[in-house]
Amino acid sequence: MALKSNVFDVETIELAGTKETVVKGGRHLFPKLPEALAGIQKIAVIGWGSQGPAQAQNLRDSLEGTGVEVVVGLRAGSSSWADAEAAGLNPGEMFDVIAGADLVILLIADAAQANLYKEVFARIRPGATLGLSHGFLLAHMQSVSDDFPSGINVIAVCPKGMGPSVRRLYEQGREVDGAGINASVAVHQDVDGRATDIALGWAVAIGAPYIFETTLQNEVRSDVFGERGILLGALHGIVESLYRRFTELGDAPDKAFSRACECVTGPLARTISHEGIKAVSESFEGDAKRTFEEAYSASYKASMPILAEIYDEVSSGNEIRSVVQAGERLKKFPMSEIGTTRMWKVGDTVRAKRDETNVELDPTSAGTVCGTMLAQIDLLFERGHPWSEIANESVIEAVDSLIPYMHARGVGYMVDNCSTTARLGTRKWGPRFESSMNQEVFPVLDSEGARDDNLVDAFQNHPIHQVLEEIAKTRPAVDISVT
Amino acid sequence: MALKSNVFDVETIELAGTKETVVKGGRHLFPKLPEALAGIQKIAVIGWGSQGPAQAQNLRDSLEGTGVEVVVGLRAGSSSWADAEAAGLNPGEMFDVIAGADLVILLIADAAQANLYKEVFARIRPGATLGLSHGFLLAHMQSVSDDFPSGINVIAVCPKGMGPSVRRLYEQGREVDGAGINASVAVHQDVDGRATDIALGWAVAIGAPYIFETTLQNEVRSDVFGERGILLGALHGIVESLYRRFTELGDAPDKAFSRACECVTGPLARTISHEGIKAVSESFEGDAKRTFEEAYSASYKASMPILAEIYDEVSSGNEIRSVVQAGERLKKFPMSEIGTTRMWKVGDTVRAKRDETNVELDPTSAGTVCGTMLAQIDLLFERGHPWSEIANESVIEAVDSLIPYMHARGVGYMVDNCSTTARLGTRKWGPRFESSMNQEVFPVLDSEGARDDNLVDAFQNHPIHQVLEEIAKTRPAVDISVT
Repeated sequence: MALKSNVFDVETIELAGTKETVVKGGRHLFPKLPEALAGIQKIAVIGWGSQGPAQAQNLRDSLEGTGVEVVVGLRAGSSSWADAEAAGLNPGEMFDVIAGADLVILLIADAAQANLYKEVFARIRPGATLGLSHGFLLAHMQSVSDDFPSGINVIAVCPKGMGPSVRRLYEQGREVDGAGINASVAVHQDVDGRATDIALGWAVAIGAPYIFETTLQNEVRSDVFGERGILLGALHGIVESLYRRFTELGDAPDKAFSRACECVTGPLARTISHEGIKAVSESFEGDAKRTFEEAYSASYKASMPILAEIYDEVSSGNEIRSVVQAGERLKKFPMSEIGTTRMWKVGDTVRAKRDETNVELDPTSAGTVCGTMLAQIDLLFERGHPWSEIANESVIEAVDSLIPYMHARGVGYMVDNCSTTARLGTRKWGPRFESSMNQEVFPVLDSEGARDDNLVDAFQNHPIHQVLEEIAKTRPAVDISVT
Repeated sequence: MALKSNVFDVETIELAGTKETVVKGGRHLFPKLPEALAGIQKIAVIGWGSQGPAQAQNLRDSLEGTGVEVVVGLRAGSSSWADAEAAGLNPGEMFDVIAGADLVILLIADAAQANLYKEVFARIRPGATLGLSHGFLLAHMQSVSDDFPSGINVIAVCPKGMGPSVRRLYEQGREVDGAGINASVAVHQDVDGRATDIALGWAVAIGAPYIFETTLQNEVRSDVFGERGILLGALHGIVESLYRRFTELGDAPDKAFSRACECVTGPLARTISHEGIKAVSESFEGDAKRTFEEAYSASYKASMPILAEIYDEVSSGNEIRSVVQAGERLKKFPMSEIGTTRMWKVGDTVRAKRDETNVELDPTSAGTVCGTMLAQIDLLFERGHPWSEIANESVIEAVDSLIPYMHARGVGYMVDNCSTTARLGTRKWGPRFESSMNQEVFPVLDSEGARDDNLVDAFQNHPIHQVLEEIAKTRPAVDISVT
């Protein structure tokens, strides 16, 4: 497979010895959008959850003056009606909007997609294009032996960041061309030869600086897996466990929070974002380096079986079925709160009086997060995912999109501004990683011999370092500024 | 449905207004075993995990002098060969043993059942009886659209306790007739009209004092659900969370362990076993009663959504598929350790210098466990399970079989002497309950208004109290003595 476009320049880049075709985005490409979206007069963005507000507003702003209309479709009586109006988008009843559109971008919650997709398909005009922002619907239909209708294009543009960051970095892109959230594109059905350019146009229009190719199948696996892993679930579980460990070892609450969480969301994420993962290890010396390597080794080993379990659950369809089932249960039992523990109350205070210059990189915390991150990277590579997807789903989405929100507003805000599927996954898998740290990692750190020479060597020479360096060249070094 | 036997007396009992047919067991019925098992010369017990050693030895002892032979079947080269020989049972290669038996009791691990059942079916003699100790195999075959062969009886006898307690209480039954672990029986296929009596004979022979009827479908749901709930998973998660809370509130480690765990495995389990759940509430007065009711209310509400999720996962087949998938992963990643946290190290010390008379019933701990227990009971009732099954899967198995082992030897011993399916479930769901307590229950207890009048009233007038009283009459008040 290779991307082929009649509109945008496709580049071949080499990542750790493998070749991938990518498009580098940016505002300078906006004049090409009418050509890329030729034949599309009306784009319907359906839903107003995490991605809906971001993509609808970015599309509208990027397409200003082109004559392409962006409309929002919602359930009649949806509580989001006023929010969409306040954002300057006139919403309409979703099925009417779908019937009138040339490109239907379906961003309703996954469980709603599972319940409503037949009605959606019935309303889409033959020859129109169905756009998805991840592969969930394909996975659900596979589990019930169903398929997309044959007479439409089916494409996906999957931003590797939650909706609020897709919007925020796009806004920052007005000052710094190329600031934005990377995206993967997948062309699943192409009935008129235009599917790839429509997908690339959509990705450019929402502000993606780096656009790489995947399949719906690979996308859903890496996406649902990644958010249950180090992007959200594992990250949450790990910082909870670290806070507990540091308080048990005698730290006062604010110091423990600083070591466990401020360190991860501040200097750790910043170092990885600016200089890569290896720079984290290189920033330590002597005893601290040894502590980093011990925490790295123990966490890599403890998290790998959970990550393998998550991948199996996603691949087998179990995780997809669970999300669909949860849709019913959520009507009776609303989603639980996750930012309510003692730790996050301490966090509110610590954040309020924060001095960024004063937060140190803690070697235990850094090692724990990096060990889990590398385990996730190795597992995705073993399962055949391309490097662009691996790097975005394991590293870039974390440090450049999600963690900055956790740094500014706490874990609850970060998690709950992602999709319902991601939120459910965090609540399900976060506690598994937390227990694993408590039961398997910390007892090993308290004994001798936690450092695993082979794992540490593999880390030093890991191909991910070159991959991150290469991908970092494609966009400006601009940090998201959470408002 | 009603049990009908040509050999044993079937009684109709009334439990909370519903009628069930049951058989009350005991050693005085052993002389009837040859009649119940007429036509069976050889019983094959396949596997040597949790139930295998217990059932094989109990059957051999009960059938001594009758001419019915009990043989054990193992994989060639199994590491359990020596253990089976040491227990006085001559093991043979499992497929050879199956081919030579009239009753094949299949007690290999669930994942192995899923992988080997076709070979097992191919070896069972037409007209023979296949015996299961829970409904897992049915659930797995349903998920792959397969079925049992038609020419054999298919029955289940499902002890409501882990293997070591099935053996231990049987041994105590030599002194006190009727001491034993309750069991459900299910007749799934009856090709010769003898299936029910064979099942009842098997149940009586392994020492079950109270034998009630179920179906394989109801059995697997309540069993896999119950062990993920208050029997193992929830119980483990709850005591971990309680220990953390008490230490955070300032208790020294040994005091915190005593309040969180000793209280639950000691006086709480003993009170429920001897006097029922309501007696726990009645043992508190004033502020302590208020604390109990607050913890009860908050825990009931927080655990119900997780319990509903577990029930959905089991019913949909997801949980069964997960266990089968785990079978493959366990070859590469052995089961994690769960009794390794700081808390259980403290526990070793506390248990070593224990003074039983000195452990108080803590109202927070008691309320938390009872709230989760009642949520589980209500959920099973809503899903149509009979009271005997509900009471055994939510209360009796906990207080009379599992918890005494946790009291004597810690959580790791208790959990890891159950089936692989149960052990996996504890590692999967325990952390969910632990997080739920930390995130949802304790913050509510720290604020006002945690007591829910409706829930407390419902508890006071709950039908489970009469059900437990009725079932308790069927066997002697003998506590399991863990050696």
